[in-house]
Amino acid sequence: MISPDTIVALATSPGAEGAIAVIRLSGEKAIDFTNQVFKGKDLSKQASHTVHFGTIRDGEHIIDEVLVTLFVGPHSYTRENVVEISTHNSTYIITQIIGLLIRKGARAAKAGEFTLRAFLNGALDLSQAEAVADLIASENRASHEVAMNQMRGGISNKLQEMREQLINFTSLLELELDFGEEDVEFADRSQFEALVKELQSHIATLVDSFAYGNAIKNGVPVAIIGKPNAGKSTLLNTLLDEERAIVSDIAGTTRDTIEEAITLDGITFRFIDTAGLRETTDAIEAIGVSKAKEKVRQAKVLLYLYDDIANTAEEVIQQIKELYYAGLIVILVRNKIDLEGGYFPNELDEDIKAGLVPEYTDSIVAITAKSYDSVTTLRNVLVDKIREMAVEDQQIVTNARHVEALQLALQALSDVEQGLAMALPGDLLAHHVRDALRHISSITGDIDIDRDILGTIFGKFCIGK
Amino acid sequence: MISPDTIVALATSPGAEGAIAVIRLSGEKAIDFTNQVFKGKDLSKQASHTVHFGTIRDGEHIIDEVLVTLFVGPHSYTRENVVEISTHNSTYIITQIIGLLIRKGARAAKAGEFTLRAFLNGALDLSQAEAVADLIASENRASHEVAMNQMRGGISNKLQEMREQLINFTSLLELELDFGEEDVEFADRSQFEALVKELQSHIATLVDSFAYGNAIKNGVPVAIIGKPNAGKSTLLNTLLDEERAIVSDIAGTTRDTIEEAITLDGITFRFIDTAGLRETTDAIEAIGVSKAKEKVRQAKVLLYLYDDIANTAEEVIQQIKELYYAGLIVILVRNKIDLEGGYFPNELDEDIKAGLVPEYTDSIVAITAKSYDSVTTLRNVLVDKIREMAVEDQQIVTNARHVEALQLALQALSDVEQGLAMALPGDLLAHHVRDALRHISSITGDIDIDRDILGTIFGKFCIGK
Repeated sequence: MISPDTIVALATSPGAEGAIAVIRLSGEKAIDFTNQVFKGKDLSKQASHTVHFGTIRDGEHIIDEVLVTLFVGPHSYTRENVVEISTHNSTYIITQIIGLLIRKGARAAKAGEFTLRAFLNGALDLSQAEAVADLIASENRASHEVAMNQMRGGISNKLQEMREQLINFTSLLELELDFGEEDVEFADRSQFEALVKELQSHIATLVDSFAYGNAIKNGVPVAIIGKPNAGKSTLLNTLLDEERAIVSDIAGTTRDTIEEAITLDGITFRFIDTAGLRETTDAIEAIGVSKAKEKVRQAKVLLYLYDDIANTAEEVIQQIKELYYAGLIVILVRNKIDLEGGYFPNELDEDIKAGLVPEYTDSIVAITAKSYDSVTTLRNVLVDKIREMAVEDQQIVTNARHVEALQLALQALSDVEQGLAMALPGDLLAHHVRDALRHISSITGDIDIDRDILGTIFGKFCIGK
Repeated sequence: MISPDTIVALATSPGAEGAIAVIRLSGEKAIDFTNQVFKGKDLSKQASHTVHFGTIRDGEHIIDEVLVTLFVGPHSYTRENVVEISTHNSTYIITQIIGLLIRKGARAAKAGEFTLRAFLNGALDLSQAEAVADLIASENRASHEVAMNQMRGGISNKLQEMREQLINFTSLLELELDFGEEDVEFADRSQFEALVKELQSHIATLVDSFAYGNAIKNGVPVAIIGKPNAGKSTLLNTLLDEERAIVSDIAGTTRDTIEEAITLDGITFRFIDTAGLRETTDAIEAIGVSKAKEKVRQAKVLLYLYDDIANTAEEVIQQIKELYYAGLIVILVRNKIDLEGGYFPNELDEDIKAGLVPEYTDSIVAITAKSYDSVTTLRNVLVDKIREMAVEDQQIVTNARHVEALQLALQALSDVEQGLAMALPGDLLAHHVRDALRHISSITGDIDIDRDILGTIFGKFCIGK
C-alpha cells in the first residue's frame, strides 16, 4: 500500500506570528531527500524518534538552521518514513525549503494526504481519521471529548466487534448454499436473530446520539423570545460577561471572537438572530407569531422570557403551545424577580403550569437578567438540559456521513429481521446482511471505499495534515 | 544566569490552517512539568534530542495525543531544559495544555523571552539574537542572506576580535597610571595608532554598508517620474507581470499580496505613491516640480521616463538637475523605442548626456515598457545599481541600533586619534578608548545592557520565540 512518492507540506499554520514552523515529509524517500539538503549528521544512519541540529542548504547557500526529527516507518503517523523539519517561521524560508525538497523529488502534499496515507496504511480507520479533523476543529470541551474519544477508537470498536459476528453468520449462511439441495441450517436462526436485535438496538442508540453529537459539535441553537423590554439583551449580556470572566487569555493563543455564541461548561450555545433581536425591539407582537415560529424551528432550545408585569398566564400558555414542536427544549424564564411580585414560586408560574403539559414547562427558572448570580441558575438549567440528551457511557455520533450509513444499516437489518420472521432461505438473508455490512463497514472504511468518497472526506482537511 | 522559572508559549503561528502546533517550554523544570501531565514513557529518564509519543492528561481527562521532544540543557536553544510538545492544531487543545502547564507551575512566556534567555545564557550574542527576528521577517533572498549571515556570527566576529585588541591596549594604558610618576609607556603608541586606524576604517565601512543593508531589509524606494502617458503604469505592470510569472505558488505557504512592491533577483523595490500615479495623470507639469522633488527625496532610485516625441533634451536636463540630490541613483529610461526615432543610441540621449554630469546619466536605458524582453534590461540595471552599493565580502549592517552605536564608536575613536596626536597622557586616552569600547560592546551585548534596552529589543519579537 505504501506509496513510492514522497509528499511534503507545511504542517503548522502559516502566518507571521509564530517563532517556528514545521515542514513535514512522508514517503519512502523522506529521509533520503532531507539528507540530500541537510548539513549535519548523516540522517540515513540515525535512529527513529531522534532530533538533529544542522543547516538546510541549497548548494553552498544556507537557507536555515533547523532541527530535523526522524520517524522511521512503520513507527510514524503515516507508517511511512516521516521527517519533520523545524525551521524559523519565515515564509521565505518555508517556501525555499519546500521548493528545494520538491526539486529533489518530493511532491507537494494534497489536503489531508498525510492522514489519508495513515488510513490507507492501517494506522487509523476511516472514522478515526475523520475524528482528527473534528478534533482540530473542536472549540469546546464537549466537542473535544467526543472527537478525542472517536479518534481513539470510539464508535468503531463496538461496531467492529458486531460486524465480525455478522460476517461469521454470513459465512454460515453462504455455506448453506453449497448444500442447497440438502436443506441444512449451519447458521442458528435464533442466535442470529438475537445478534440482529442487539445490533439494531446498538445502532439505533448511536443514531439517537446524533442529535446531541451534532449539538455539541456545531453548537446548540437557542432562540430567545419575549416581549419588547422582556430583558433579552440584558440576559445575553450577562451570560456573555460571565463567560468573559471565566475565559483566561493565555498569551500566544487566539480565541475566536465571541459574538452571539456562548460556551457554558464546555457546551457552545448559539443564539439565533440575536444580533437583530438586540438592535430592534421585535417580539412576538412585533414580528408576528409566524415569524417567531420560524425562528424557534431553527432552534433546539427556546428561552421564553416573561414577567409578572408584562404578561398574563393566558398569553404565555397560548404562545408556548403555538411555538412548540416535538424535540424542542422549552425553558420558561420569568425575569425581573427583583420587582414587586417577583417571589418564587408565584401565582403566574402556577397558572402557566396548570395550563400546559409538563414537557412544555418542566423547567421554570426565575431570574433577574442583570445579575450574574441569578443567571447562574439559568446557565445550569441550559447545560443540564443538553447533558440530559447524552446517554451515560454511550458513544456519540457527530458525523452526518456516519449517521446516514447507520440509518441505511438499520434499514437493511430490518429487512434481515423480516426475512428471518418469514424464514427466507439463506441466500436471500445473506443478501440483506451483506447490505447491512456494507453500510457499517463504510463508517470504518473496512471495505474498498470509492476514491471519490475518500477525496471528499480528506479534501476537507487542511494541507499538511 | 539560568532562571529558575520555567516559561511556556505556543511557538508556531496561531490559526486554523495548520495540522499541528508546537508548544515550547524552557527552564529548570520544563521536563518535570511536562512529565507530570504526560502519559507515556517517564520523560525524566529519556535522553536529550529524543521524541516520545503519548497523551497529555488533566487527571484522567485526555487533552491530546502528542509528540514530546526533549532537549536537555545546555544542549538546547536557550541552554536550559527545553521541551517541545507537538499537538493537534486546535485552539482549544493549545489553550488547555498551556493552562495545565501553568497550573503545574510554568509561567506564560513574554515576547522574545526564549531568545532573551538564549542571549543571557551565552548561546547567542545580542546582534545574533536580533538577527533571529530579522531572519523571520525576511521576505526576499537578499535580506534573508544578510540576516542569516548575522545570525551565524556576521558582524560580531570581526568586531569581537578588534575589541579584544583594544581592551589589551586599555589595560596597558591603565597600567601606566600605576607608574604615574615614572613616565613609562607600556602601550606602544604607534602600534596603538595603527589599531585605531584599522578599527576606524572597518567601522566606517560597516556604517557605509547600512545604506545597502537598510535598502535590502526594508526594500528600495523607487520614484517613477514622467509626463502623462510616459508609460509609468505600463512599465510597472510589465515588471509586476514578470515577477508573477516567476513566483511559483507552493501549496501550504502564503505570500504577501504583491501591491506596488516588486522583488527582482532577491531585492525588493517599493514604488513610492505609485497607486496615485496610476490613477491620476499627474506628472511633473501637473504636480509641480516641488511635489516631484518631495517624492524623489523619499526615494533611493529615480526612474525618469521620457521619449523622443514628448520630451526635449533641455527639459530632461533641467528637471534631472532640479530633482537630483547626493546619493540618489538616477536611471534615465527612454521609453517607446518601438516608435519612430526609437533606435539606440539616439540624438536625444546624446544631447541629454552632453548636458549632464555622468553621475546623473551613467545609466540610460532604452525600452518599450509593454515588452517583457525589453524591460529586462531595465530590471538588470536596477538590480546591478543596488548590488553595486554592497562591497564584496563586506559584512552588512541592517540594524539602526547597530549603526548608531558604530557612529558613536567612530566619534570616540576619533577622540582617541586626536589624543594620540596630542600625546595625551594614558588616563585621558583610556577614557576615550573605554567610550569606544562601550559602544562597540553594546552591539554584541558584551557589557551589561540596560534591562529597558533588552526589553525594547526582545519586546519586538513574537511570543514563543
